[in-house]
Amino acid sequence: MREIGGAVTAPSGYRAAAARCGIKTEGPDITLILSDRPASVAAVFTTNQVKAAPVLVSREHAAGGRARAIVANSGNANCCTGEQGLADARAMASLAAEAVGIDPGEVLVASTGVIGHPLPMVKVEQGIREAARQLSPEGGEQAALGVMTTDTRPKRRAVEVDIGGRPVRIGALAKGVGMIEPNMATMLCFITTDAPCAPAALKTALLRVCDRTFHCVTVDGDTSTNDSVFLLANGAAGGPPLEADPEHLEQFAIALEQVARYLVREIARDGEGATKLVEVEVTGAASEADARRVAKTIANSPLVKTALFGQDPNWGRVVAAAGRSGVAFDPDRVQAWIGSVEAVRHGAISPEYSEAAAHAQLAADEVHLRLDLGAGDCSITVYTCDFSYEYVKINAEYHT
Amino acid sequence: MREIGGAVTAPSGYRAAAARCGIKTEGPDITLILSDRPASVAAVFTTNQVKAAPVLVSREHAAGGRARAIVANSGNANCCTGEQGLADARAMASLAAEAVGIDPGEVLVASTGVIGHPLPMVKVEQGIREAARQLSPEGGEQAALGVMTTDTRPKRRAVEVDIGGRPVRIGALAKGVGMIEPNMATMLCFITTDAPCAPAALKTALLRVCDRTFHCVTVDGDTSTNDSVFLLANGAAGGPPLEADPEHLEQFAIALEQVARYLVREIARDGEGATKLVEVEVTGAASEADARRVAKTIANSPLVKTALFGQDPNWGRVVAAAGRSGVAFDPDRVQAWIGSVEAVRHGAISPEYSEAAAHAQLAADEVHLRLDLGAGDCSITVYTCDFSYEYVKINAEYHT
Repeated sequence: MREIGGAVTAPSGYRAAAARCGIKTEGPDITLILSDRPASVAAVFTTNQVKAAPVLVSREHAAGGRARAIVANSGNANCCTGEQGLADARAMASLAAEAVGIDPGEVLVASTGVIGHPLPMVKVEQGIREAARQLSPEGGEQAALGVMTTDTRPKRRAVEVDIGGRPVRIGALAKGVGMIEPNMATMLCFITTDAPCAPAALKTALLRVCDRTFHCVTVDGDTSTNDSVFLLANGAAGGPPLEADPEHLEQFAIALEQVARYLVREIARDGEGATKLVEVEVTGAASEADARRVAKTIANSPLVKTALFGQDPNWGRVVAAAGRSGVAFDPDRVQAWIGSVEAVRHGAISPEYSEAAAHAQLAADEVHLRLDLGAGDCSITVYTCDFSYEYVKINAEYHT
Repeated sequence: MREIGGAVTAPSGYRAAAARCGIKTEGPDITLILSDRPASVAAVFTTNQVKAAPVLVSREHAAGGRARAIVANSGNANCCTGEQGLADARAMASLAAEAVGIDPGEVLVASTGVIGHPLPMVKVEQGIREAARQLSPEGGEQAALGVMTTDTRPKRRAVEVDIGGRPVRIGALAKGVGMIEPNMATMLCFITTDAPCAPAALKTALLRVCDRTFHCVTVDGDTSTNDSVFLLANGAAGGPPLEADPEHLEQFAIALEQVARYLVREIARDGEGATKLVEVEVTGAASEADARRVAKTIANSPLVKTALFGQDPNWGRVVAAAGRSGVAFDPDRVQAWIGSVEAVRHGAISPEYSEAAAHAQLAADEVHLRLDLGAGDCSITVYTCDFSYEYVKINAEYHT
């Protein structure tokens, strides 16, 4: 597997662009991605019961397993906008379809930004037409800019992997910094591939990958109303479909997971106000569900996150968070590490603990916490970030 | 019902004191409360599976339904301290018992502060002896100081109520500012009464009151390892036991609930870094459990809490938090208010909404949010606070 440039246009047969239409105060705010031929599509959406209009429209358009384009805007979530919002999301699909000469049902729609305000459709229309004019096989890197909100940098990745002796490419972009605790999906992530694959097999691969990546990231525990992951597979790489050989499908899923894991780490690292990427690994759990629940509780604890910001090895807060997670375990069997430093053994301070050594581990940009429950052999890693003044500032000042 | 002074020594037959022994860097850090006769006791403890040593000891001592004294320290939670911690908690009970001439099994123990450090028992012993020397029927107000950690002010309350033609008094103190989301109990709250009442009836009244008060407060969603509510009833007011007349027990429970609700509001108002008290009322729920789950999710949402700090009427975040709570409702039936301003009707912006009016509501010291789910007729109010720079500062700098 090789990392390559080009993001969503790295795979053959895709063009993309970002344009500015003025929804945000600055920067591109419309993204358009187009496959030059019909593609299989798999999509995963937010489980928040309050679903934004574009989620409802995209779910409908992805239901048949085929799509050709993705149109997205940033700066406005088109959520809690009633009938008008639904009409606006459909209009975004129609405008994109018309601009590139395809059917509106082949267009997936996504929005991200403030909740509860109607989309400025005159601007949106102008932006979509402009993005369509700029579509280019070199537009993949640029496309990531059009979905950014409080993101401090674009998140994108492309890899090439040989499957059955044939090079297959996977490209992706993602956005997300706040209102991040995907629950069956993440903020916005658009993935393209030139591998040939039927919709059902594509969906199976995507769900499996989401479970290990996008469902393992949290910034603030708030699940967005707009979370969407779209995966397009247009088959331009040629060859038999992936599902014809289970080993090929497995190789594809592994490559897809690496792309997704890279983006998830980027999302956590760029969490609103974050000063560090934090990996919370829970081992020794009776089930993967238990491991996930304990890891998420630790990763979302404001007391743990502020201690990490303060570079304070406050392992008591980690253990206390595990204890309130609702997962059964024997506190006397708990073991915990801050980076490579053993802090807790048999539920109390480890004889090998050194506060200075633990403190040094927390000074790094990337921090690894591990808690072993001593209750089984299941494990998981959840990606998050620390909690700083800046998070409060960003979200207190992000006025409606 | 009349508010009176004196806190935990307002009821007849109680003495109390706070002393300084040097666990914290300043202020009293040992609290002692004594009933001059055996009292019925009801106690509720944290549901965190990681339980501090004093919780284990107090649970044992309260099991028989009788107690005479409470000894507590601040500055050290005596949690995750292994066998030594358990021995130290038992020693606190023995030292207090010896100093006032009662049995160690009649003493309840509580600790609050940093997790994972052994108690400095030489200091603790000195503090308990000093507190015993200072015990006084006027010590109730002072007693609240000995359990404070990052609390900016003591929390205490006393009321007098006529029950069956006889004046009965209830006094209380509480502490708690961070690691606050009690789950079957709250941080520390000690309540005294001179009403006569059997342990079983006292426990029933306390559980009912906790459910409506202490289980409805959250600062940061982190359930402490040390949460304890103790209620002593020594019968010094005379008369028949409360449980002899259901109406008397009801009158007592109502008075108890008012005392508890006052303290819960004080805890939320004094939440770490808080600039306002926030009441989150959820109405129109299919069950009280649903109402509680939605209200807690809103109250713990970092995005909602930072918006409140910024005085930003970001109702979209309130609705989005409800949507991820796991409770089923129809988003199109949701209605929401910021103070008296209707913000959401039928799941979208209300025609009567005024951002300026909503903003004005958020400028107050006390803010009321209401969300109606349109799914039933159950409701609940949860008490919380906003999320400021100061919370991050306090918890990043609160070094172990």
